[in-house]
Amino acid sequence: MTEKKLEKCRIAVDAMGGDYAPKHEILGAFDALQADPNFELILVGDREKILKTAREEKINLDEKLIHHASQIIEMHDKPTESLKSKRDSSLVVGAKLVQEKKADAFVSAGNTGAVAAVSTLLIGRLKNIERPTIGSFIPSESNATYLFDVGAFVDVKPQHLFQYAVLATIFVSELHGIANPTVALLNVGEEDEKGNKQVKETADLMRNSDLNFIGNVEGRDILKGKSNIVICDGFVGNILLKFGESVPGFMKYLLKQHSEKSLFEKIKIGLFKNTLKQALSPLNPDLYGGVPLLGINGISIIGHGSSSPLAIKNMILRAKEMYDKNLIQKFEKALETYAVKK
Amino acid sequence: MTEKKLEKCRIAVDAMGGDYAPKHEILGAFDALQADPNFELILVGDREKILKTAREEKINLDEKLIHHASQIIEMHDKPTESLKSKRDSSLVVGAKLVQEKKADAFVSAGNTGAVAAVSTLLIGRLKNIERPTIGSFIPSESNATYLFDVGAFVDVKPQHLFQYAVLATIFVSELHGIANPTVALLNVGEEDEKGNKQVKETADLMRNSDLNFIGNVEGRDILKGKSNIVICDGFVGNILLKFGESVPGFMKYLLKQHSEKSLFEKIKIGLFKNTLKQALSPLNPDLYGGVPLLGINGISIIGHGSSSPLAIKNMILRAKEMYDKNLIQKFEKALETYAVKK
Repeated sequence: MTEKKLEKCRIAVDAMGGDYAPKHEILGAFDALQADPNFELILVGDREKILKTAREEKINLDEKLIHHASQIIEMHDKPTESLKSKRDSSLVVGAKLVQEKKADAFVSAGNTGAVAAVSTLLIGRLKNIERPTIGSFIPSESNATYLFDVGAFVDVKPQHLFQYAVLATIFVSELHGIANPTVALLNVGEEDEKGNKQVKETADLMRNSDLNFIGNVEGRDILKGKSNIVICDGFVGNILLKFGESVPGFMKYLLKQHSEKSLFEKIKIGLFKNTLKQALSPLNPDLYGGVPLLGINGISIIGHGSSSPLAIKNMILRAKEMYDKNLIQKFEKALETYAVKK
Repeated sequence: MTEKKLEKCRIAVDAMGGDYAPKHEILGAFDALQADPNFELILVGDREKILKTAREEKINLDEKLIHHASQIIEMHDKPTESLKSKRDSSLVVGAKLVQEKKADAFVSAGNTGAVAAVSTLLIGRLKNIERPTIGSFIPSESNATYLFDVGAFVDVKPQHLFQYAVLATIFVSELHGIANPTVALLNVGEEDEKGNKQVKETADLMRNSDLNFIGNVEGRDILKGKSNIVICDGFVGNILLKFGESVPGFMKYLLKQHSEKSLFEKIKIGLFKNTLKQALSPLNPDLYGGVPLLGINGISIIGHGSSSPLAIKNMILRAKEMYDKNLIQKFEKALETYAVKK
């Protein structure tokens, strides 16, 4: 299944991207190298800051791994403007390395909109793809549930949603080893006649294709893992993903409220804390290696601003896997072969 | 604040609506009468079945409380067709009692789409309202968070979303005692320029009105309780609500998975079960008295198919409160006064 490439994958890591940059980026990158030394690391960012942090963290950093970039794109920077206004930012420089074939993949925990926009503009889109898409792993009762799109574009057409499904099918089958992953459309009901014009037209496209389309699923079916791939527009997907990410915090709030009712309950909750944390650990987004930006002519993986070293490590290993498995070429092929049957 | 009416509120309860009908309906209705005997109960449904269940439950039921209806609308019946095909169903007969001013409110745990469609068609809409709306209480870190719309209509225009906000403002201020509840638009980002055309145009309408509009909120802000009222279209709202409702079941699944790892963990989780259940009790939808259908010229409250007696009781008391507080008249007035400033 895996067609190993001869060349080592070169991965450009935006060392200045996340909220804890460059510390988490450096730690995560070195953890990734320990787990799998078979790639070339390029740390993109402020040389002095990276070296200083490495010293503080007692990491013996080879200066040659650093590709200097003087600027930083902040979370509040406007995605499309940053390409012009911050040409020497770690984010722009990192994506440019992929554009210029000096790197094979780009990994960043920076401003999501900016990573998506800059990657798309510099690395370019695959043939016939108008809208790249960002997908997110969703923990569920099945072994793989991915939600596409979670926020790349809010105004889309049925053919874009169809393309998301093709890209997601390749991604999930290659990276989760599921031969023919199920694809469903997120809707307000399971019946074909439910929903708005957009989902009905998309369902028609999917039904007449080689996708393993199982029809509509509802909001309640996602965590049940009813489908390996759940397709929706970026408006719905982004709202849903952020809502889902806020659930553990709300649980914590409810437990805290309850613990304040009596000392006895407080002690009980205190004793149980660790078990609960372990039981709910599949909810930890750091495990899933960021969200891939699919539909561009290269590999770009976007992480949360709050990415831990574990998250950065998993993003890097995910990027390497995408490279080793020739995913970009497989996307191109699938976009042709999965097309709508006449 | 409460302008008590002189006449007793007459509440028609669809006794055959929910999955456990008529048992939960009868039990809930009698619990409601015990909590507040100051309303007239009309149990709409199959006389014999109702009497038989009452006997089984050792409830001394006055037969005069029953309004016979021979048919039942099932969960799989098509909402709009049921009005024609099942004219003598408890659902149609109950809504008709409100239409004919023989009842002041209708409460049903039946087929949500059918209750909404039949109530709208028979009871009629308020002046200038094209789209009635269903709102749901969402447990959050603030004392009142309501999400409108959660599924009445999937294709809406900005003026419909604006009207939802007006109706919700009256509902939340009257029923939660919050003088000037905050209203927010659900969006993919907080900034004004974020989102699709629909939300941008709706934001313009809200900004130029007397609503207490605070701008956009994101998916993660709902459970934080950032706004008392969160407005979205029925497509997004329905998916989000159903996703949220599936979260407790998924937590249970994760705890079960974890408990199977070792006997020790199993015992710990067993010991903690009750505390967790109590802590998460605010998530129980039975507490919130169903979802009101707003924008129609009368009171109609829709419950989950799986409504418990507690849910039915709370739905009835909620209907009574809406009647006692003259909510329908207040809606009409608000729809004029909150209008967009020229």
